[in-house]
Amino acid sequence: MYSSYDVIVVGAGHAGCEAANAAATMGSQVLLITMNMQTIAQMSCNPAMGGVAKGQIVREIDALGGMSGIVSDKSMIQFRMLNRSKGPAMWSPRCQSDRNMFAWEWRKALEENTNIDFWQDNVTEVLVKQGSITGVKTSLGIEFKANAVVLTNGTFLNGQMFIGEKVFGGGRTAERASSGLTEQLVSLGFESGRMKTGTPPRVDGRSLNYNLMEEQLGDEDPGKFSYLNTPKLNKQRSCWITYTNQSVHDELKTGFEKSPMFTGRIKGLGPRYCPSIEDKINRFADKDRHQIFVEPEGWDTVEVYVNGFSTSLPENVQYDAMRKIPGFEHVRMFRPGYAVEYDYFPPTQLKPTLETQLIKNLFFAGQINGTTGYEEAACQGLMAGINAHRNVQEEAEFIIKRSEGYIGVLIDDLITKGTEEPYRMFTSRAEYRTLLRQDNADLRLTEKGYAIGLASQERYDAMTQKREQVAQLTDNIRAAKLKPNDVNTWLESKKSAPLREKSSLYTLLKRPEIEFGSVEELLQMFPEIPVVTKEVVEQTVVEIKYEDYLNRERINAQKLDKWESLTINPTFDYDQLKALSFEGKEKLKRLRPSTIGQASRISGVSPSDVSILLVYMGR
Amino acid sequence: MYSSYDVIVVGAGHAGCEAANAAATMGSQVLLITMNMQTIAQMSCNPAMGGVAKGQIVREIDALGGMSGIVSDKSMIQFRMLNRSKGPAMWSPRCQSDRNMFAWEWRKALEENTNIDFWQDNVTEVLVKQGSITGVKTSLGIEFKANAVVLTNGTFLNGQMFIGEKVFGGGRTAERASSGLTEQLVSLGFESGRMKTGTPPRVDGRSLNYNLMEEQLGDEDPGKFSYLNTPKLNKQRSCWITYTNQSVHDELKTGFEKSPMFTGRIKGLGPRYCPSIEDKINRFADKDRHQIFVEPEGWDTVEVYVNGFSTSLPENVQYDAMRKIPGFEHVRMFRPGYAVEYDYFPPTQLKPTLETQLIKNLFFAGQINGTTGYEEAACQGLMAGINAHRNVQEEAEFIIKRSEGYIGVLIDDLITKGTEEPYRMFTSRAEYRTLLRQDNADLRLTEKGYAIGLASQERYDAMTQKREQVAQLTDNIRAAKLKPNDVNTWLESKKSAPLREKSSLYTLLKRPEIEFGSVEELLQMFPEIPVVTKEVVEQTVVEIKYEDYLNRERINAQKLDKWESLTINPTFDYDQLKALSFEGKEKLKRLRPSTIGQASRISGVSPSDVSILLVYMGR
Repeated sequence: MYSSYDVIVVGAGHAGCEAANAAATMGSQVLLITMNMQTIAQMSCNPAMGGVAKGQIVREIDALGGMSGIVSDKSMIQFRMLNRSKGPAMWSPRCQSDRNMFAWEWRKALEENTNIDFWQDNVTEVLVKQGSITGVKTSLGIEFKANAVVLTNGTFLNGQMFIGEKVFGGGRTAERASSGLTEQLVSLGFESGRMKTGTPPRVDGRSLNYNLMEEQLGDEDPGKFSYLNTPKLNKQRSCWITYTNQSVHDELKTGFEKSPMFTGRIKGLGPRYCPSIEDKINRFADKDRHQIFVEPEGWDTVEVYVNGFSTSLPENVQYDAMRKIPGFEHVRMFRPGYAVEYDYFPPTQLKPTLETQLIKNLFFAGQINGTTGYEEAACQGLMAGINAHRNVQEEAEFIIKRSEGYIGVLIDDLITKGTEEPYRMFTSRAEYRTLLRQDNADLRLTEKGYAIGLASQERYDAMTQKREQVAQLTDNIRAAKLKPNDVNTWLESKKSAPLREKSSLYTLLKRPEIEFGSVEELLQMFPEIPVVTKEVVEQTVVEIKYEDYLNRERINAQKLDKWESLTINPTFDYDQLKALSFEGKEKLKRLRPSTIGQASRISGVSPSDVSILLVYMGR
Repeated sequence: MYSSYDVIVVGAGHAGCEAANAAATMGSQVLLITMNMQTIAQMSCNPAMGGVAKGQIVREIDALGGMSGIVSDKSMIQFRMLNRSKGPAMWSPRCQSDRNMFAWEWRKALEENTNIDFWQDNVTEVLVKQGSITGVKTSLGIEFKANAVVLTNGTFLNGQMFIGEKVFGGGRTAERASSGLTEQLVSLGFESGRMKTGTPPRVDGRSLNYNLMEEQLGDEDPGKFSYLNTPKLNKQRSCWITYTNQSVHDELKTGFEKSPMFTGRIKGLGPRYCPSIEDKINRFADKDRHQIFVEPEGWDTVEVYVNGFSTSLPENVQYDAMRKIPGFEHVRMFRPGYAVEYDYFPPTQLKPTLETQLIKNLFFAGQINGTTGYEEAACQGLMAGINAHRNVQEEAEFIIKRSEGYIGVLIDDLITKGTEEPYRMFTSRAEYRTLLRQDNADLRLTEKGYAIGLASQERYDAMTQKREQVAQLTDNIRAAKLKPNDVNTWLESKKSAPLREKSSLYTLLKRPEIEFGSVEELLQMFPEIPVVTKEVVEQTVVEIKYEDYLNRERINAQKLDKWESLTINPTFDYDQLKALSFEGKEKLKRLRPSTIGQASRISGVSPSDVSILLVYMGR
């Protein structure tokens, strides 16, 4: 009865939305199936996008032609560039979002994509024929045909929510779970596991005393995520900071005996770096306080998200403990925090394209792969959507290398190392994080996104213009000379040594005490240098200041990349290499790395195993 | 652990929102409990407010100080005054709404009411002590204390959704049902029953061919619902009209053997005047087509509501049949239509305040009372909220008489006659509908709303100003004289007989051929009459044109009202009146009418029974 599709995307969270949009933009006919069209792109947890390493991912998604950056820009209520005081590799954009606007902007974007159809239903089965996906079956009994399927089921697969001793079936508060699909995938040969995550209570902002908290303002000159011409904020809402204390902790401890975490009723591991408050006071017993960020949920709502207070303790314990937090003395709760346990599929069962090894043209993206975080989910969805489209078109796989982006690091980590607990991105996971900055994601990735038909011409032109302007400004800075008299007073004001002789602006910029904020003052001394955007100045100066270091990193990255380009046939017979270690052979046979680089990162594959592979391959 | 409240409202649909807002505005501390704070004021069915008789109800809610009119005005995308060609008693305002904006405007309004707290949870039990309500218990096991409770559970009590042979538990698509509460209320002595309603499929507007449909524009000079100063639309979205045909009907019939309606799997009766399409072709087999209204779901969405095509046939039958409707040849569905069956409580168990007879300070409002429609639900919520507040404050009950408003007709019908099928308002249900017009709801009710502290000063002042302006304009019109020469050419153009002698404007206006639209032209001939608003002109002219008729109606209504003011003690011992008929006595004992008027309308209470009651009461 229904048309068949190139690509079906199951689930319309961050991963599903990016997957559907990417495949459709590249030309696939896409069907997006969601359990509820009213909850497309719901932010299940905190009303925010970006943050350390995560902000870089949003910039990379945007550079490739994804939508998360644009949607975030259109719905943000506050913007901050985190880690400004550290080196530029650590600068990380983050925004507070209006929860409803975020969801609505995504829905509008998807509706505007004429290649996307929608269907509200629950997928209970994938259809497989001779090892290839052929479609999905829904709870209404409908079979939709497709050449590729992307599963982005989030926390809904056999989802169970916990509040104290209470357990409710469901994937998100007040929303039903999805059952049947895990069981079928397991019967097809997939391995599955359980993971856990949680969310804090939401409270009534009218009941808080902000006088007892520290105000956290947005940036004075707020940035944004997209490299395109999205609007910047001209007003912002503040967040607020407060702290737990010993009596909050004591109150929380009264609920430990009813905690689903501590009594073993929750089996799945939770996100180590986004622990519940009970976990924090349990694991860090010496800390006498923890920070709480009080985040508004939108422009015009009194609802507030209590960031840092994720919990699944009984709701009366949540309430009593919150009341002991400064500013929360008279708090009224809207909804308690809860934990949710759900099925995931260990991602070592995937190829670098996020296609499953077991079933051709079946892709997994997002929390189903054991990750946590909106940004981590979104970038997987993007990559799965791209590769689903390219598989259907019989085009080559599209991979981001570890040296090219956090997206590459994330996917390579997942498929190579797997994860036992919800995987979150950190800058420390990247070998060459100084190369993977938020300021240069467009220069790193837009050309690739453009080549596959995802990044628009407008985006490509903006990137090339920026690249040219950076090159031009770099040349101008190299050519610009300063005499001691011109600049020594200024240098003194910056506590920087005076010049003895004529010197180039270029060498002056390398001085660490000449900070980014004062570069524009220096440039103003050269009226012959054309004025360019703040972004171009920043990009240029980062490259000048860290030139030697970045060049060294690039050489190292190229070495790494050599191994990445040595591909291994997915059906390679490792048994013929008798010299491989037993563990190495076993892991290689199981994970089937697609490159020598990936093989070298598998835990249990020794350097000598890698040498054996290289020898065999004629190196 | 939690504070106790004056009033707890369970459910945040149209009824719950009005109830919470009314009680809180009048000064009660209110807790609004909803299963999902993201779905407050969701329009479950069509994206529209008002319509015949329903539009009058919205105006009455507004006149009393409720919010439905204001929220509708802020979220409408099209406005039409229905039945303009009929008499003014039939004029009925109706708007298309932006589904998301409607919900968000309600939520903002509730959040701005500082006397309302929110709690997201599922109420599973009411707490009762010695025949009085003391609070509610939730699925989290929390007991909230209150002096009064208003239940507005809608279609959620043991809700079951049907699509062809499929059955899903749930109160609304993708939302869980609520269980436990019915069973407890029945154990407390309440009688419950099952009812059924349904909703049509939602489709992708991008897949429709509007060239094959008739465009339905909004009014050229769009009106609005609120008597306050809400904005008027300056742009509108169109609806479209198309029709089913014999081949659509034939296609639908192929699904009849799987229909949950026809196979007896749905036991509850559905709304007679809002039947499913299968019902229509079954009951009206001679009609070879039915009208379909194609309604946009908002300003910026492609989703479309297929009004007139409510169905619970298998989704492939829905799809195949829709494709045979002109303009729907290539339709893509977003979600199929479905039927939902749910528990209700026959409303004869209620007092005129909507308080239950069984349990003091427990109120029921909305679909739980067996009604259908947003407006019917909203006005019950308003009245229950008002009376819950007044009961708690030990103030007198607040009743709207049948002669004062549709709200009075609705509640009196419900509690006196009960209803076997979902009750919908019609103008024909009112004895004196010419008095209950959309143009005079403020003059009828705002004084009453103001007296109880619900209607604001601003609203009261606007009403008195309008009343004075109408009186002034009426005087001016009485005083204005026209000479034949001044007006005969104009009268000829209106095909109205020429004047023979000097005549008053007043008598001229009574001529039926002088339509409302041309009155302003006439008024312009009298520069000495001050210009007033369109609303004042309309109100004045209606009263002049229909003066004799309306005066007769008012006298009749006053007669009716006499009986309404003869109250009967709720504990009156009917057994002492031996002369009462057996059936009359039985019904009176069961329904316990609060006035002679109500008693006289009970089916089975004869005119002689009424005489006996009157004699006993000394009349």
